[in-house]
Amino acid sequence: MQVVGTSAKRVDGPDKVSGAAAYTGEVHLPGMAYAKLVPSPLPHATIKRIDASRARALPGVYAVLTGAELVGMEQTYGSERKDRPIVAIDKVRFQGEAVAAIAAVDEETAEAAVELVEVDYEELPPVTDMLAALEPDSPLVHPKNLCHEYHYDWGDVERGFAESDHVFEDTFTFPMVYHYAMEPHTCVARYDAEGITVWSSAQHPFIVRDELARIFHLPLNSVRVIVPYIGGGFGSKSYAKIEPLTTALAREAGRPVRLALTVEEAFKTVRRHSARATIKTGVMADGTFVARECLAYVDTGAYADNGVRVTQRIGDRMPGPYRFPHMKVDTYGVYTNTTPAGSYRSIGGPQAAWACESQMDIIAAALGMDPLALRLKNLAVPGEEVRRGRRPLEADLAMGIKAVTGSLGWTSYRPSSPRPGVRRGIGMACSITNAGANPTSTAIVRLLADGSAIVLVGTTELGQGSRTTMAQIAAEELGMSMDAVRVISSDTGIVPYDRSTGSSRSTTLMGLAVQGAAVEVRDQLLELATEHFESAPGGLTVADGAVAHGDERIGFPDLVKQKFDGEGGELIGRGYVSSQHESGKLKQEPVFWEVGMGAAEVEVDEATGQVRILRYVSGIDCGKAINPQQAEGQDEGAAMQAIGHTMFEEMVYEDGQLLNPNLIDYRVPTFADLPEVFETILIENGDGPGPYGAKGIGEGGVVSVAPAVANAIYNATGVRIKELPLTPERVWRALQAAKREGG
Amino acid sequence: MQVVGTSAKRVDGPDKVSGAAAYTGEVHLPGMAYAKLVPSPLPHATIKRIDASRARALPGVYAVLTGAELVGMEQTYGSERKDRPIVAIDKVRFQGEAVAAIAAVDEETAEAAVELVEVDYEELPPVTDMLAALEPDSPLVHPKNLCHEYHYDWGDVERGFAESDHVFEDTFTFPMVYHYAMEPHTCVARYDAEGITVWSSAQHPFIVRDELARIFHLPLNSVRVIVPYIGGGFGSKSYAKIEPLTTALAREAGRPVRLALTVEEAFKTVRRHSARATIKTGVMADGTFVARECLAYVDTGAYADNGVRVTQRIGDRMPGPYRFPHMKVDTYGVYTNTTPAGSYRSIGGPQAAWACESQMDIIAAALGMDPLALRLKNLAVPGEEVRRGRRPLEADLAMGIKAVTGSLGWTSYRPSSPRPGVRRGIGMACSITNAGANPTSTAIVRLLADGSAIVLVGTTELGQGSRTTMAQIAAEELGMSMDAVRVISSDTGIVPYDRSTGSSRSTTLMGLAVQGAAVEVRDQLLELATEHFESAPGGLTVADGAVAHGDERIGFPDLVKQKFDGEGGELIGRGYVSSQHESGKLKQEPVFWEVGMGAAEVEVDEATGQVRILRYVSGIDCGKAINPQQAEGQDEGAAMQAIGHTMFEEMVYEDGQLLNPNLIDYRVPTFADLPEVFETILIENGDGPGPYGAKGIGEGGVVSVAPAVANAIYNATGVRIKELPLTPERVWRALQAAKREGG
Repeated sequence: MQVVGTSAKRVDGPDKVSGAAAYTGEVHLPGMAYAKLVPSPLPHATIKRIDASRARALPGVYAVLTGAELVGMEQTYGSERKDRPIVAIDKVRFQGEAVAAIAAVDEETAEAAVELVEVDYEELPPVTDMLAALEPDSPLVHPKNLCHEYHYDWGDVERGFAESDHVFEDTFTFPMVYHYAMEPHTCVARYDAEGITVWSSAQHPFIVRDELARIFHLPLNSVRVIVPYIGGGFGSKSYAKIEPLTTALAREAGRPVRLALTVEEAFKTVRRHSARATIKTGVMADGTFVARECLAYVDTGAYADNGVRVTQRIGDRMPGPYRFPHMKVDTYGVYTNTTPAGSYRSIGGPQAAWACESQMDIIAAALGMDPLALRLKNLAVPGEEVRRGRRPLEADLAMGIKAVTGSLGWTSYRPSSPRPGVRRGIGMACSITNAGANPTSTAIVRLLADGSAIVLVGTTELGQGSRTTMAQIAAEELGMSMDAVRVISSDTGIVPYDRSTGSSRSTTLMGLAVQGAAVEVRDQLLELATEHFESAPGGLTVADGAVAHGDERIGFPDLVKQKFDGEGGELIGRGYVSSQHESGKLKQEPVFWEVGMGAAEVEVDEATGQVRILRYVSGIDCGKAINPQQAEGQDEGAAMQAIGHTMFEEMVYEDGQLLNPNLIDYRVPTFADLPEVFETILIENGDGPGPYGAKGIGEGGVVSVAPAVANAIYNATGVRIKELPLTPERVWRALQAAKREGG
Repeated sequence: MQVVGTSAKRVDGPDKVSGAAAYTGEVHLPGMAYAKLVPSPLPHATIKRIDASRARALPGVYAVLTGAELVGMEQTYGSERKDRPIVAIDKVRFQGEAVAAIAAVDEETAEAAVELVEVDYEELPPVTDMLAALEPDSPLVHPKNLCHEYHYDWGDVERGFAESDHVFEDTFTFPMVYHYAMEPHTCVARYDAEGITVWSSAQHPFIVRDELARIFHLPLNSVRVIVPYIGGGFGSKSYAKIEPLTTALAREAGRPVRLALTVEEAFKTVRRHSARATIKTGVMADGTFVARECLAYVDTGAYADNGVRVTQRIGDRMPGPYRFPHMKVDTYGVYTNTTPAGSYRSIGGPQAAWACESQMDIIAAALGMDPLALRLKNLAVPGEEVRRGRRPLEADLAMGIKAVTGSLGWTSYRPSSPRPGVRRGIGMACSITNAGANPTSTAIVRLLADGSAIVLVGTTELGQGSRTTMAQIAAEELGMSMDAVRVISSDTGIVPYDRSTGSSRSTTLMGLAVQGAAVEVRDQLLELATEHFESAPGGLTVADGAVAHGDERIGFPDLVKQKFDGEGGELIGRGYVSSQHESGKLKQEPVFWEVGMGAAEVEVDEATGQVRILRYVSGIDCGKAINPQQAEGQDEGAAMQAIGHTMFEEMVYEDGQLLNPNLIDYRVPTFADLPEVFETILIENGDGPGPYGAKGIGEGGVVSVAPAVANAIYNATGVRIKELPLTPERVWRALQAAKREGG
């Protein structure tokens, strides 16, 4: 292969380094109004009265949107549950929820108008703890606080535990975290005779299109969602977020409206689910797993957002990549008076792995086994049905985990104390996640009269490098230079349908669509070349922008000329991907198993509890790296992001008030927090269902960091910590407690 | 048929009446600069020196573009001859030609900077008369003033004239006119790492794309030309106009640039070719035509623009729709120091018909024949090769002309004097023009998951109603409601190739492409329905957004669901049109013969020379009217526009200075100038090569007005006028001269 498998330079690089790259915030329409939100100061209250008359009277104010204005349309939205009002109606369920929105001539005027909106609240007691929310006497966020529950099992865990030599039960907690992106949510909406046009920092433009069409009772072709470059998503921009409100406000104002959230408002838009997981695992003395029972709760906040899927996914991920004759999983998604929780890079994955992979080392220690040996003994093997009734595992996990731990010199490593009061150790973790990737993607490839090409895809470019990957796939199939391929993405009016940019799906599924569309163009080129050479198609080869027949060559431009008599024209190809894809590889769900594994060496300062990650090795099974450099970049980004929830990220609530919705009080990783050595090992067995055997990556790297680091702290100090983040204070207290127990 | 053939409401209507319709002037980009041109005050001069230093030093000025800045790029452009510099280099060739362009923070600053650009000219004598320009001692606009010449003949005209009973020779002149559009030329250009993005009021976005790619040495996929709604074109926005300059200025300024011409600047951008035609026709005593010799000159102004094609086309159109055993045509396109002349609704057509159809009545009068009878005697018949080696005539001209004249009661009509000093009479004219339509068009149709559709076409909507027509064709082929079809047009980045929106080609050629793309979608629906019903495709019918099998029906949304397992998706169809089109109807040029015929009744006030058109009947052979109301609208617009050059439009030059580049001094038709009775007769014989037998219209209506009115004036007063426009003064002087001769 000429292009696929090379670390081709990013096609969006020049745009971004030159500042030419356009983001939603740079969209300016004639007559556009600027919007500001009126936030609820209370976490839980009924709205007795809203008087916006003074705000409406302020010169420069075009419109004020409250629940009362949500007429002739659907009032609520949500990815699975339509439980979130576009603006609060009758009740507010979390502090910061918008009770009204202002559209004005400029942001200053809109801000001034915010102060003039009078809202009478009747305060209700808030509930911000998910276990408390399930108590019979709890305040009710919704008619019931249980949002969703998920259960499955196989075998008979009770019998399994009875047959086990040892049974371990541990409980772990995972904090509320916010996926901080450089670009907070931004939307520009126009509502006119043509229908709705929305520019938005949305990861899934077609899902937003479908949601807006439903809310405003319009056909799909009358809603156009355009997504410029996105300044980071990580799931925070999945599904509809501020688009319904901005569009409703534009309808009310009778002019285009721009809403650009502040970082604080973004913190109050979506977050990752906090979790509490109890795992009971039965094992034989030799370490063979027998049975596991899991009980997990996730806090989905004031509205479901993606909480239904997260509740399922954390359950699906509790068994880990291991063989269990008996399994029982029960998970519950709970409403509380906090920021709604939704998608975040590997939904449910880090929460599940934090618990399971921490307990792995607890078990290994109790059995006196090496944690690697314990994992290798129980790992599912390629072709094994690792979840009953689901796609068998493709990946060779043992190979991967040996490579990852080998790179740290695992087998010969011994914990040490390089300096007094400082201890070093290593830890590891391994996970597989059933990517929720829905198989539907379509693409169009256009070969122009000069032999250059345009690829039309719905995949949004949010920094992951999708445009580059798609250009590589098209160039590879068309036998042309990547420089001659341009990717245009994410305008639902013009590019064909794509389900979403998430669940690590784009390279695998949109990649197949682009490949199919390129092949359809290539077939037309071959047909034209067959006429030209008066030969059989068999004898033709496509390379370097030409079709060759023996020593004779005819360039793509001449073939297009042949079809259109030299008068312009172009060739068009289409690619369709669904579970019925001709490859037959997409029939079973999950479309692929995403693999993530990591090993860390840490240094713990016993005096301060400060933990430093000295080395981190991440193993990523991508099947085939279309662009190795970008694959590594995805993995590094994921692992670095996970350092946040591992070491210090946590949204803190007090009496229902979010105390740290800003980057001063809420700490995200900086370069100073990175490991001194970071290594990504790409595992390429060509066993994925995507083009050239690729499978999805970019989420797997998030999953193993926290347990690998906690396991390394244990290895270094003998202290086991079951709560995140691993702040110096928490580590120091654990060390002190251990000392006291020790004597 | 359900949709085609109905006067469906315009899909762009709501947009336009609500003010939501966006035009290029409404495009505003962050950091966008505003441009002003530095016009040459002289019609002909060499540029000795340009000093822009003071302009560049003015605060708020970003860049000044002069010939010196045209580096690393092509310096000239043009549709056939690349003879027009992007800004003047070394020499200016007409008054108003841009010698420099300013990009500044706002228009006021740019205008101020214009005054600060110092240009030293060495004045050269101008030539503004095309015959003078061909004199040996004429000043030279270009190395030679002859831009292009065109010759053809058949038979032997000398022998023909010798065999004729009578030979008539007459010379006619046609003025310089400007196609005034509500929207002057406007362009916004961005030149960045992605390449070039241009928003422009361009009729032919793909031709502009190709021109910009050539000038700036970029591949076609790096140049994106986006055309919002256009406020009227009529040919004035054909090919590249201000786009190369605006793009070069954006490159120089390093930021987006907006150039919106004033009406005066638009007058100095392009105009229709003035013409002088001498026709010598030999006839037998019974009126049978024997031979014709034509000598025509067209003034293409300072640059060729589309002058090469116009020189050819006026020649092609000199024989008219009549049978001649002997024919000789010689035409010459000449450079002068005036506004460059380009495309204008039926290039060369009105100029040729003015001469030929006026002489028809001179001949008829001399022979004592009825002008209708003379025409019927000599009209070509369907299937006749009306031009040697070209597509035989499809149209039944005799049928059409009888219908048109019949509507005025031609055969029983007698000239009259309703009041003293007022005379009434009738006249007619008939023409066929070989539409220069290039056959290349492509289209994409997308059927979305809810059964609504999007049609992607390169045809620009400039008021002619193309979006409506394309929606009707797609709806017809897909058996769905037009309301469920949305047409998105004219962004070369996203819609597939279309040659141009001109030459009356869109309904015929893009219509075929849309039909083909819709059929490709329908075929996919039938294939899915065949699976669904487990039936043979034969037994299926497509109607009302569903496929029926006997009494069973399955809607389009369910068929899309079937293909994508209910998970979104869409069906995509492509349409290709070229001379190799499967219909086989596009092999020969012209793609179709455009027919235009008209008859007028006028009233002449002998005291003032004022002419009023009482009744006008226009006959339009459209083959099949996809939308009868729009077809009539096109024809009415064309005839009304032709009243301008017939009655009062003329660009007046004195010493190379254009005296009337504004709507005060240059009179265009108003409602007060319209005939009291206007009738369009649509002739639908289904004999066109387009969808449902359609052929192009919209230009034919322009052609016959001037000769029909002049012939009516002759019928009323016995006075023959051979110069346009027919101003009261010109008519009055002719009446006085006739009186003197008469007595």
